[in-house]
Amino acid sequence: MRILGLDPGIAIVGFGVVEAVRGDFRPMTYGAIRTEAGLPLSERLEIIYNDLGQLLDAVAPEAVAIEELFFNTNITTGISVAHGRGILLLVCRQKGIPIYEYTPLQVKQSVVGYGRAEKRQVMEMTMRMLHLKEVPRPDDAADALAIALCHGRAATSLLFQAGENTTCSTT
Amino acid sequence: MRILGLDPGIAIVGFGVVEAVRGDFRPMTYGAIRTEAGLPLSERLEIIYNDLGQLLDAVAPEAVAIEELFFNTNITTGISVAHGRGILLLVCRQKGIPIYEYTPLQVKQSVVGYGRAEKRQVMEMTMRMLHLKEVPRPDDAADALAIALCHGRAATSLLFQAGENTTCSTT
Repeated sequence: MRILGLDPGIAIVGFGVVEAVRGDFRPMTYGAIRTEAGLPLSERLEIIYNDLGQLLDAVAPEAVAIEELFFNTNITTGISVAHGRGILLLVCRQKGIPIYEYTPLQVKQSVVGYGRAEKRQVMEMTMRMLHLKEVPRPDDAADALAIALCHGRAATSLLFQAGENTTCSTT
Repeated sequence: MRILGLDPGIAIVGFGVVEAVRGDFRPMTYGAIRTEAGLPLSERLEIIYNDLGQLLDAVAPEAVAIEELFFNTNITTGISVAHGRGILLLVCRQKGIPIYEYTPLQVKQSVVGYGRAEKRQVMEMTMRMLHLKEVPRPDDAADALAIALCHGRAATSLLFQAGENTTCSTT
């Protein structure tokens, strides 16, 4: 099963593609979609729309896993990130790819086994689970790989439990 | 000049099209794009994308005026509205239509002449300026017409001041 993980943003959208084969995970590709800070918001959204569309065509994932948004401090930044996240959901929907959402807590619990794990621990476990020699860069790509792994574990676990017809809830 | 006003939302996106002719304003059409609450967010975003695209093709506005977002109370609602607003900006950008943003304060100042005007006053002035016999329904459509009027006044004022080559800042 090929899973695309997405870490939403407006300046930088992290992505990471993971192949799940018999309980093991392999990285297929990872990186980031970037948009310049000086551009109008509508143009930045169009860049994200076009780049993610191309990525989905190239990678052809069977599922997309995306992080849910939580605003603790900077609401202004949160608004523009939510604009960008809307575009991510739209493109996946238009391409007909099932979307699964996970909270940061769920990702940490799945990858490290502890919901209050530090970012560094998530990065290291992501690196180990994917048999990588270094922590993936940028951080947004590493986050996206962790989200993909989280869905990979959830989906694999469901398959083991109830056979191949089981599906997670979609958005 | 034909102006489309947009009042962002996820359950309901208000729209209002205004024709500005020699300092006077006429309503061309108004209403709302609606999405059902039970649908997945990605599907609601796709409905907004498709419906706004059709509206832009039918109406062919020369400018789009859209309200800026402010979150005072309900951040959860604000996040989904921001997802939807991202789609509105994307579609306008893809269709090549210039986008102008206004705060609620700017809309009230422009339409009523007073930034702390009540919603009822904005509705009544919108009705009068457009020579309508009743306040437009739903409220979201009336809000969208007010936003279109706000841009109509700003654009007309700029044209009077500096000739036809003047443009407002776009997003």
